[in-house]
Amino acid sequence: VTDAIITLTTDFGEESPYVPAMKGVLLSINPAARMVDLSHLVPPQDIAYVAFFLAEAIPFFPRHALHVVVVDPGVGTNRALLYAEAAEHRLLLPDNGAITLLAARHPVKRVRRLAEPRYWRPSVSATFHGRDILAPVAAHLSLGVHPDSLGPAVDEWVRLEMPIAVKEARGWRGEVLFIDHFGNLLTNLPADQLPDRPFRLRIGEKEHQVRRVRAYGDGKIGELVALVSSGGWWELAIVNGSAAREIGARRGDGVQVMLAG
Amino acid sequence: VTDAIITLTTDFGEESPYVPAMKGVLLSINPAARMVDLSHLVPPQDIAYVAFFLAEAIPFFPRHALHVVVVDPGVGTNRALLYAEAAEHRLLLPDNGAITLLAARHPVKRVRRLAEPRYWRPSVSATFHGRDILAPVAAHLSLGVHPDSLGPAVDEWVRLEMPIAVKEARGWRGEVLFIDHFGNLLTNLPADQLPDRPFRLRIGEKEHQVRRVRAYGDGKIGELVALVSSGGWWELAIVNGSAAREIGARRGDGVQVMLAG
Amino acid sequence: VTDAIITLTTDFGEESPYVPAMKGVLLSINPAARMVDLSHLVPPQDIAYVAFFLAEAIPFFPRHALHVVVVDPGVGTNRALLYAEAAEHRLLLPDNGAITLLAARHPVKRVRRLAEPRYWRPSVSATFHGRDILAPVAAHLSLGVHPDSLGPAVDEWVRLEMPIAVKEARGWRGEVLFIDHFGNLLTNLPADQLPDRPFRLRIGEKEHQVRRVRAYGDGKIGELVALVSSGGWWELAIVNGSAAREIGARRGDGVQVMLAG
Repeated sequence: VTDAIITLTTDFGEESPYVPAMKGVLLSINPAARMVDLSHLVPPQDIAYVAFFLAEAIPFFPRHALHVVVVDPGVGTNRALLYAEAAEHRLLLPDNGAITLLAARHPVKRVRRLAEPRYWRPSVSATFHGRDILAPVAAHLSLGVHPDSLGPAVDEWVRLEMPIAVKEARGWRGEVLFIDHFGNLLTNLPADQLPDRPFRLRIGEKEHQVRRVRAYGDGKIGELVALVSSGGWWELAIVNGSAAREIGARRGDGVQVMLAG
Repeated sequence: VTDAIITLTTDFGEESPYVPAMKGVLLSINPAARMVDLSHLVPPQDIAYVAFFLAEAIPFFPRHALHVVVVDPGVGTNRALLYAEAAEHRLLLPDNGAITLLAARHPVKRVRRLAEPRYWRPSVSATFHGRDILAPVAAHLSLGVHPDSLGPAVDEWVRLEMPIAVKEARGWRGEVLFIDHFGNLLTNLPADQLPDRPFRLRIGEKEHQVRRVRAYGDGKIGELVALVSSGGWWELAIVNGSAAREIGARRGDGVQVMLAG
Repeated sequence: VTDAIITLTTDFGEESPYVPAMKGVLLSINPAARMVDLSHLVPPQDIAYVAFFLAEAIPFFPRHALHVVVVDPGVGTNRALLYAEAAEHRLLLPDNGAITLLAARHPVKRVRRLAEPRYWRPSVSATFHGRDILAPVAAHLSLGVHPDSLGPAVDEWVRLEMPIAVKEARGWRGEVLFIDHFGNLLTNLPADQLPDRPFRLRIGEKEHQVRRVRAYGDGKIGELVALVSSGGWWELAIVNGSAAREIGARRGDGVQVMLAG
């Protein structure tokens, strides 16, 4: 299908000419490509952020979509660029661990290292492989080039060490994995493992009153509530406010759940 | 038409995976849908903001477009989700008043409460109906599902109380309805009602020198001017500057026009 | 081709209803148009910024794309609106110099002043020609209207005075032309003119240690490096940091390269 869907996720921001240059390259090779912006506001060079982002966003896309991800502090060095399939989802991205969390639920297969310059721009800069390699490769794939022709198969790729929540005698110990636009804290505490009885909650160094609710609107305005996030984790939110700002919480802060009794 | 236009307006921000998840769901049901981002920077939970935004943007779209609006502090509670037509413009949105200003000029008809889970995602979260209900319903509508099959007709929906400017003996009393990206103050003073003779202007507690001009460029750089906004209201602007910042004005501030003589 | 590509570059921001209104107008005239957002975060009224932006982005697009640019402090005054071709790239924009840098590498030809109201909205505001003139003209062009029918040919248009780097006895003197999302400083120093031997660097009033590298990842984290930008200029960057913030550099700051020996 020449009018394939190609999504773009970068840390390039929206005021710089970098995303436009990628879009231009894509359309120059496949004018019928349909580009979908996922985000260009990944914090600069933040691999852990984009790893969470991809795990929460990619699974909702149809299988024929192609996802180009450019968060690439190692551009121009000897880090590899990869084509990978996570379940049926197709990605093009630097080999820096960004696929880790997605891969945990959607087994990665058919990984190729991009090594065929005939699918690249004729001149490749040392600072912008998103434009010079990933965008043209995506466009060629969307025109029917077979992934196996992009370069050699590889068995190994970088995996981030992702923090895993730990069950304790009287609760769980995890951490804040992601803070969303609303300031809600998304944790790595598994939603199906937390009981309905009262509990105490520690975020970072401080203990908080928190009430388990089903929906934001079930809490009072300004109240700290715990609920199941749309991605299936425990989420801590201040109703109509920003938990991150009001609590002073940051990504990576420890979260401890202590069951009563 | 399977390649229908579906616009998206949310308060989700652009750095979170929520808008991407909605786009993925839409494309999974109708891969040919053409999605148009209107804004994802509506201030969180700000119904009055999005009400103004929709009234200024939607009327310019062709009638076959479908507008999905997700500013939804009541997600997961018993607030309804609606399909509504404002003149010929088709919207999907929570029943929270966001349609109020659009409806004032484009009469609302054929309102349906979404009640048919066969058009939803199989599993519906309590925190993200944009992804689990509104996006799939939009995709099904774009494939030709008839609005009447979405759920029962309803006669009542939430209306915001919108501030209306008041004519006084020697002028008008209104307020700042919206502050745009430039810091221009859009008021609820009707453009066709303000005379050409000199007037004094009070914004909030403070009186200001202001000159009526036709275009920004007719004022001097740094000058506070009043002109007719592109939406047909009185607008207060500082030429090449930010009226909001330099005056310290905020949405909801009173605006009083006092005619000379 | 009715499904032509139309790109949008503005200083309207993403939270205001202005870009949506333009998109609605475009789609109302040509429902098959494919719109591509380049940026809506050009700093307000910043012609020099958008001039650099266009020069770095437009050349990557296919020739049939049409580029609408609305950074327009003179809207409603007697400044002209232009159709112009830079090499084969087609643009619609106010006559304010924004095309200057693009034109330096891609000769401008066939410039027309927009003067045929039959391609405009029936009612034209004094504050929003992007919506009322440029968007409908773009849509009509995408439907096959010939550029020559838009208005009279013009020979003269506004050119910005762009700062040009100067060769000195022992180096170069230039300036910071653009600061990107990462805080990297893009200068007007020509990449192919800087030697490999050591040099000293002055930015604004202050001298800095700097090392020439090929890629960001070749420097140490926190190190100030000089490298060839993806657009072919000398770029100053702090590895995994923001040169703009950490050095306190601003656009327009002088940059002096002093060769050793």
